[in-house]
Amino acid sequence: MKALSKFLHYAQVFSALTTMLEAARRGVVLEELRTIALNEEVDVEFLVRGLSNGRIIVPKNAARGNVEPIGIGEGLRAKVNANVGSSMDLSDINMEVEKAKLAVNYGAHTVMDLSTSGQMDDVRRALLKSVTVPVGTVPIYEAAYMAIRKHGSMVHMTIDDILNAIEMHAKDGVDFMTIHAGVTKEAVEHIRKHPRVAGIVSRGGAIIAAWIIHNGRENPLLENYDLVLDIAREYDFAISLGDGLRPGCQADANDFAQMAELLTISKLVVKSRAKGVQVMVEGPGHMPLDQIEHHVKQAKILVDHAPLYTLGPIVTDVAPGYDHITLAIGGAVAVAAGVDYLCAVYPSEHLGIPLPEDIKQGIVASRIAAHAGDIVRLGGKALKWDLEISKARASLDWEAQFKLSIDPETARRIHRRVPSKSGACSVCGEYCVYLILSKFLGSSAKSAQNLRC
Amino acid sequence: MKALSKFLHYAQVFSALTTMLEAARRGVVLEELRTIALNEEVDVEFLVRGLSNGRIIVPKNAARGNVEPIGIGEGLRAKVNANVGSSMDLSDINMEVEKAKLAVNYGAHTVMDLSTSGQMDDVRRALLKSVTVPVGTVPIYEAAYMAIRKHGSMVHMTIDDILNAIEMHAKDGVDFMTIHAGVTKEAVEHIRKHPRVAGIVSRGGAIIAAWIIHNGRENPLLENYDLVLDIAREYDFAISLGDGLRPGCQADANDFAQMAELLTISKLVVKSRAKGVQVMVEGPGHMPLDQIEHHVKQAKILVDHAPLYTLGPIVTDVAPGYDHITLAIGGAVAVAAGVDYLCAVYPSEHLGIPLPEDIKQGIVASRIAAHAGDIVRLGGKALKWDLEISKARASLDWEAQFKLSIDPETARRIHRRVPSKSGACSVCGEYCVYLILSKFLGSSAKSAQNLRC
Repeated sequence: MKALSKFLHYAQVFSALTTMLEAARRGVVLEELRTIALNEEVDVEFLVRGLSNGRIIVPKNAARGNVEPIGIGEGLRAKVNANVGSSMDLSDINMEVEKAKLAVNYGAHTVMDLSTSGQMDDVRRALLKSVTVPVGTVPIYEAAYMAIRKHGSMVHMTIDDILNAIEMHAKDGVDFMTIHAGVTKEAVEHIRKHPRVAGIVSRGGAIIAAWIIHNGRENPLLENYDLVLDIAREYDFAISLGDGLRPGCQADANDFAQMAELLTISKLVVKSRAKGVQVMVEGPGHMPLDQIEHHVKQAKILVDHAPLYTLGPIVTDVAPGYDHITLAIGGAVAVAAGVDYLCAVYPSEHLGIPLPEDIKQGIVASRIAAHAGDIVRLGGKALKWDLEISKARASLDWEAQFKLSIDPETARRIHRRVPSKSGACSVCGEYCVYLILSKFLGSSAKSAQNLRC
Repeated sequence: MKALSKFLHYAQVFSALTTMLEAARRGVVLEELRTIALNEEVDVEFLVRGLSNGRIIVPKNAARGNVEPIGIGEGLRAKVNANVGSSMDLSDINMEVEKAKLAVNYGAHTVMDLSTSGQMDDVRRALLKSVTVPVGTVPIYEAAYMAIRKHGSMVHMTIDDILNAIEMHAKDGVDFMTIHAGVTKEAVEHIRKHPRVAGIVSRGGAIIAAWIIHNGRENPLLENYDLVLDIAREYDFAISLGDGLRPGCQADANDFAQMAELLTISKLVVKSRAKGVQVMVEGPGHMPLDQIEHHVKQAKILVDHAPLYTLGPIVTDVAPGYDHITLAIGGAVAVAAGVDYLCAVYPSEHLGIPLPEDIKQGIVASRIAAHAGDIVRLGGKALKWDLEISKARASLDWEAQFKLSIDPETARRIHRRVPSKSGACSVCGEYCVYLILSKFLGSSAKSAQNLRC
């Protein structure tokens, strides 16, 4: 009976190639939303409403099988993405799969394949098979790579080359794709006339800018955005409007080019939703700490509260080797201000391709940022976790504290390096505040009557 | 001639046991201030004025010899402290010296000895000899330890025990001391009647609270604060008014006890300055991200713009093993809001005594936070560093980028793990944005005409 109703339900939803967004607008409660409602502790009606008005997206390609659905957007926990991908200097499918699995194990909610070279199709397909989280890609990388092979240079790339790459990724089951349609001829010419300190740091942005300059024409993704939407609609993948002109250093933050792109993107959000395609918007980048909140709030208004996905913000340029930490600072502030989804940054950012050893540091740091921001966004619902671990800490219940830690294995390992005879830790031993409080203030950490304190 | 004038200068300053604060009030330009003015790129008059009105302190014990003077406070770069110290579970003088030296090598501006057990006097003296940065201590730890040995319990500690410990540290040359004089009987009784989730997490705070409860009397450091000031004045060390009741978890942040202590401290700031003693004020602790700015601004007003020194703020309780990162998030926001001095937190926080392997992570993370905050506090003066490294990055000048990195060795190591033939890095190889821009947009990264892109 249940199977039959489920079948009829999907038959109804997809009979007329209806997208998830359109289904939500008709009030259909998809199975995915029930799962998400349970995980996020929200009403399913809240999700239907959020999906309908575009404030929440559920990136899931209709052609992909086994995916744990997630929601990204207002009222939900901030999510973390893990980038992987091969390059011309290191192309090893097994390593990319290993990195993706490690990332998911440490709590990444999605994986993006940013391969720019090597066995790109094989890497993407291997990733789609190896993880059950939503997978995203940037098909312009593949289009540019193919154009170099076919035509001798990325600037000879045709719109068909781009659409072919998008369709191939869609057929493979990719759940969301970055589309750099907001890079305009005007904005690129502005950067040429008024050079930035760090120029253009988005690969997609640089490819489109080179194409625009060489051909003297408008961005083909912008001019043909309707054709992109047709494919997105057919496979029902979500579009992530890429910020090709994001600032690449503190000095370039919130400048003309960045804001011009955001304005273009704001119009593309409306177009996407009108065609029933789910859409989110990518954000910076490098940005001083005190500019993040106003930028995020401004962006949310311009994009009509579409989910925001940031590649940063990184709050200083001076810390290569530690950009998981500069991201944690900016990311936490961004999430508190309204960002819904953080792209993890690894210690290798600005220096080289991430290796498996970088994954844990990057993912855990981003999850810390997301949670610190969620405490502000979601209040008590997020704070429950902090409350539970704090109670375990105050009662010196170490096992409970480890289990509640964001990375139990690391917490346990550090605690055990220097054993303490006191039942407390090796910093204070018998002079632990909780033992003192227990003996003299009657708190309940544990019996401390026999301790010399 | 110069030596004579220097001698006469110091003779004048110190003839009547004048403190540095009093010298500044008389308009004397001490040698220390000239050094600091050069390092901080500020006018020496600005420092004299800041020292006079207490917005800046220069912690330096008159009895200590070779110290590189630093200024802490408004208009100056935020500083980072490194805690070291032996415990009952691990007491190794050489290791504590090694940790202190490592911390200074990675950029810590001061070192605090928080030894709670073991060869406490020897550790302190060894540290004072081994580093040339200002050294701080918390003499109540030693007083409590001695009281347990002499009287059987820390609650039998007398005011003489405490003053003796303070004087011994002062004679040894300690440059600043944490004094928990703000913990009142009223605030402790409030915590007993309205228990907090995490109780009292400051060791000094817990010792004083136990003493108050057991003896039914007011905090001896508060009642005898004038005697503490007499010793501080004599040796001209700075007082750091400890926040014994700082919140130890998100749920306890900004509660009655924390704010009651801050009000008591605000009165002690006035008393200290009136006696010519330099003073700063310690702050939290654990605190949700959105409460930090208003707390810092409120605190600065209450303490009449005395320098603020935070032991956090840590923006979530769930990340033991990664509290250098939770500190980096809260610390950056705190510095941007007006905090002057961050106590570094190591990955071992909440779990055990830090080992040498923790020092680099903790100090670098705190320095990143301090600099991200300085970009907001100091603007262009701080941003120069970011501008220079960004130019090096955009021109693919790797050696310059490493040299300008906060930790050159780590940046260089990560970059070299996977070599790139392109002159760029192993993420994009020949498809590096700076090579694309160079070829098509005429930027000057390097000649890219021969590259296939």
